[in-house]
Amino acid sequence: MNWMESARRIQEDLEGLSAFTATPGQGCTRLPFTPETRAAADFLLKKMEEAGLETWQDPAGNLFGLLPGRNREKPCILCGSHYDSVPGGGNYDGIAGVVCAIELARVLREEGITPDADYLAAAFMDEEGCRFGSGYFGSKAVLGRLEPGEAGRLTDEEGITLARAMERYGLKAGELPKAAWPKGRIGHFLEIHIEQGPVLDGQKKELGVVEGIVGLRRYRVAVNGRADHAGTTPMDMRSDAVEMAARVIAQVGDMAREAGGSTVATVGQVNTRAGAVNIVARSLEFSLDIRSLQNEVLEEIPARIRRRLQEETEKTGGSFTMEETLRIQPVELSRPMRKILEESCRERGHSWMALPSGAGHDALSMGQQVDTAMLFVPSRAGRSHCPEEYTPPEAFGRAVQVMKDLIVRL
Amino acid sequence: MNWMESARRIQEDLEGLSAFTATPGQGCTRLPFTPETRAAADFLLKKMEEAGLETWQDPAGNLFGLLPGRNREKPCILCGSHYDSVPGGGNYDGIAGVVCAIELARVLREEGITPDADYLAAAFMDEEGCRFGSGYFGSKAVLGRLEPGEAGRLTDEEGITLARAMERYGLKAGELPKAAWPKGRIGHFLEIHIEQGPVLDGQKKELGVVEGIVGLRRYRVAVNGRADHAGTTPMDMRSDAVEMAARVIAQVGDMAREAGGSTVATVGQVNTRAGAVNIVARSLEFSLDIRSLQNEVLEEIPARIRRRLQEETEKTGGSFTMEETLRIQPVELSRPMRKILEESCRERGHSWMALPSGAGHDALSMGQQVDTAMLFVPSRAGRSHCPEEYTPPEAFGRAVQVMKDLIVRL
Repeated sequence: MNWMESARRIQEDLEGLSAFTATPGQGCTRLPFTPETRAAADFLLKKMEEAGLETWQDPAGNLFGLLPGRNREKPCILCGSHYDSVPGGGNYDGIAGVVCAIELARVLREEGITPDADYLAAAFMDEEGCRFGSGYFGSKAVLGRLEPGEAGRLTDEEGITLARAMERYGLKAGELPKAAWPKGRIGHFLEIHIEQGPVLDGQKKELGVVEGIVGLRRYRVAVNGRADHAGTTPMDMRSDAVEMAARVIAQVGDMAREAGGSTVATVGQVNTRAGAVNIVARSLEFSLDIRSLQNEVLEEIPARIRRRLQEETEKTGGSFTMEETLRIQPVELSRPMRKILEESCRERGHSWMALPSGAGHDALSMGQQVDTAMLFVPSRAGRSHCPEEYTPPEAFGRAVQVMKDLIVRL
Repeated sequence: MNWMESARRIQEDLEGLSAFTATPGQGCTRLPFTPETRAAADFLLKKMEEAGLETWQDPAGNLFGLLPGRNREKPCILCGSHYDSVPGGGNYDGIAGVVCAIELARVLREEGITPDADYLAAAFMDEEGCRFGSGYFGSKAVLGRLEPGEAGRLTDEEGITLARAMERYGLKAGELPKAAWPKGRIGHFLEIHIEQGPVLDGQKKELGVVEGIVGLRRYRVAVNGRADHAGTTPMDMRSDAVEMAARVIAQVGDMAREAGGSTVATVGQVNTRAGAVNIVARSLEFSLDIRSLQNEVLEEIPARIRRRLQEETEKTGGSFTMEETLRIQPVELSRPMRKILEESCRERGHSWMALPSGAGHDALSMGQQVDTAMLFVPSRAGRSHCPEEYTPPEAFGRAVQVMKDLIVRL
C-alpha cells in the first residue's frame, strides 16, 4: 500500500468536507445539530460505506463504521475524532481524525488485514461545545456519562434547547441512554488529531506521540484596594489594586516555568473596571488558566498565587477573592500503546517526539474510562481554530500507517 | 476678632452655597455657565457687597470684590479660588477658598486693617474643566493666556460651544481679552484650598503650607505580543502582552518611591482588550500618571519605564508604544511668602507642615506668572470630588488668620 495514495485520499475527503460550513469563505463553522453537520454526516456515512464498513448513526448523532475482527467477542478498537467545528474554524480540527479513521479501515481492507478485534471508525458529535456551552457530548454519550436532563437544560444563544435541536435534526433526546455502550465493550480508543500548537512544526517533527492530556484549573481573581486621588495620595498611603495584582501576575509565568514539563499558566484577561487615569485603582480582575500533566502542580501553583496575593494585599489592607471556575483532571495515555507507536515511528523512519496535549480532545473524555492512545500531526505555525489551520496531507498518511501498526500489534 | 466667629460665618456661607447644585442630594454639580453657577455667582457678589467690597463680574465670569489699599498704585493682592465643581462633587473644593477670601476681607475691615496694596477677593470660573474639557479658564483669562478662538472651538457633551454657553449666560466670548489684567498689576496670588489628600488628616496637622504644585506627565501605553492558544503554546514560545506589561507595571510604584519626596506614579487603568481566559494576550493597554515637584524626576521615570518596556518586549519579539498625553511643568511657590505663613502658624500655635500639592489648582495657573502662596486645610480621610468631602469650619478660620498675617506683612 502506497502511503502517498493514502495522503491523497485523505486530502480529497477533507476537501469534500470543507464545503459543509455555515460561513463559506470565512472558515469552517459546523455547529452540532445543524444542516451543515447533517450534510457532513451523510458524506462521512457514504465514505464509510464505500470503504466497505457497516455504518450507523447512534441516538447522540455519533457515526460508526464497523470492520469486523477475527474475534467478535473481544473488546473492540474505536478510532476517530469529532466532526463539529468551532465558529470560523479550520478544515482539520477534529474532522481530519475522522477521515484518517476511515482511511485506516480502507488500508486494512486493501492490505487484507483482519484485525484481531472489531475495528470501528467513529465520528463524534459536538466535542467543541460551542453551541450549547458544554462539549464532549458524543463521547460522553458513548460512555454513558451524560447527565440525566442535560439535553433539556442546555440551550444555545437563541434559547433553543439541545433536546429541541436534536428533535429538529431527527433524533430523540429520550433515547440518548441507548447511545451508551456496554461497559468493557470498547477495549481501546485511538485518535489522530492536529497538534493545534507550534511544537511539532517548530521542531520539524513529523509525528507527536501524546503522553497525556493536561489537567486544567481556571480562576477568576479580583484584587481590591482603595480608590484614591492619583495626585494627592502619597505612595505609602495607597492600597493600589493594580500594583498589588501586577506584582503577582508578573510571577505567574515563572511559576509555570519552574514547574517545567508540560506546565503552562496564562493570565489572558486583565481589567480595572471603572478605573481612571487619575485615580488609584480600587479593583482589578484577572483570569488565570493553569494546565499541567501533573496533578500536584495543578494544586501547587494556585496555592502559591493565593499566598502571594495574601502577602501583597496584607501590606496595604487590601483584599482579594480567587474563585475556581473549572477543574479538569489530567489523563495519562496508555504507556504500552505509546511504546508501540514510538517503535513504529522508528521502524518507518518518521521523525517524532513525545509531547503532552495542552488542549482537550475526545481522547480526554474517552481516556477517563478506556485505554487510549493519541497521535498528533503538525499544525503549520501552530495555528488552529481559524481558517489558516493547515496540516500537509502526507502527515496524515504517516499517522495512518503508524496507527495501523498499533492495531496490528494490539 | 474672634476666629471662631470667622469659622461660623464661613460655614454659613458654605451651607448657603451648597444649595446651588444640579444634583441635589447627590453632591455638588456646578458646571460652568449653568443656572447653578449663576445662582452661586449672585450669592457670592451679594456676600462681597455685604462685606463692603466693590464688586464686579469680568467678561470670563470671574467675580471680584475690592478692598482698596493704602497705596492704590502698588501691584494688588488677589486671594481666592474657583466656584465651579466636578459632577457629584463636594461642598468645599474650590468654593471654600472663595468664601475664605471674602471672610478675609471682612476680618481686615472689622480689625480696621487697610492693606498696603489693594486686596481683592476673587472667584474664578471653570477651574475643573469638567464641561468643556479644558480647565483654569477663569485664571487663564485674567492672565491673558486664553488662546484666540478657544471659546468657539471647545464644546460640551451636547455639542454646545463654550462661546454659545457664555452667550446664554449673558457674556460675550468676543470680550474675553478684556478679562486680562495689565502685566504687573497683580503682585501676589493667595489661595486657600482643601488638601484633597490624606496627609494633613493622617498626620493631625491643622494647616499645610504648600511648597509647590507638582508637574505631571501622562501616557497611554500599549504592549503588543502575539495571541496564542493558552493550552498548546509552551511558555518559551510565547510573546505574552500581560506578562511583559505586568513585569514593568509592578515596578512603577517603586520608581516613584525611589525618587522620594513628592513623587507619585499611578497606573490607574489596565485592560486586555479582546482578551480571553484561554488565549495568551495579544495586547494590553495601560495608563500612566507621574507627578513630582522635580522636573528631572518627570523626565527620568518615563525614560526608565520606556527602557524596561524595551527590555521586556525585546525578549519575546513583542513591541510597545508609549504616547504622552499630558505634560504640565511643576511650579514652586514663593519661598518668602511660605516663610511668613510658617512663622504665623508657629506664632499662633497652629500645628502645620510643608507639603506639595499633588493636584492642580488656580494657584498652578496663576503661579506661571505671579508670585503665589497657598494654604491647605485638612480633608477628612483625604476624600474629595465626592459628596463625602469634609473639612471642619475651624480649619478655615485658622487659615484665614494666617493668610491675614501674610497680607499684613507683605
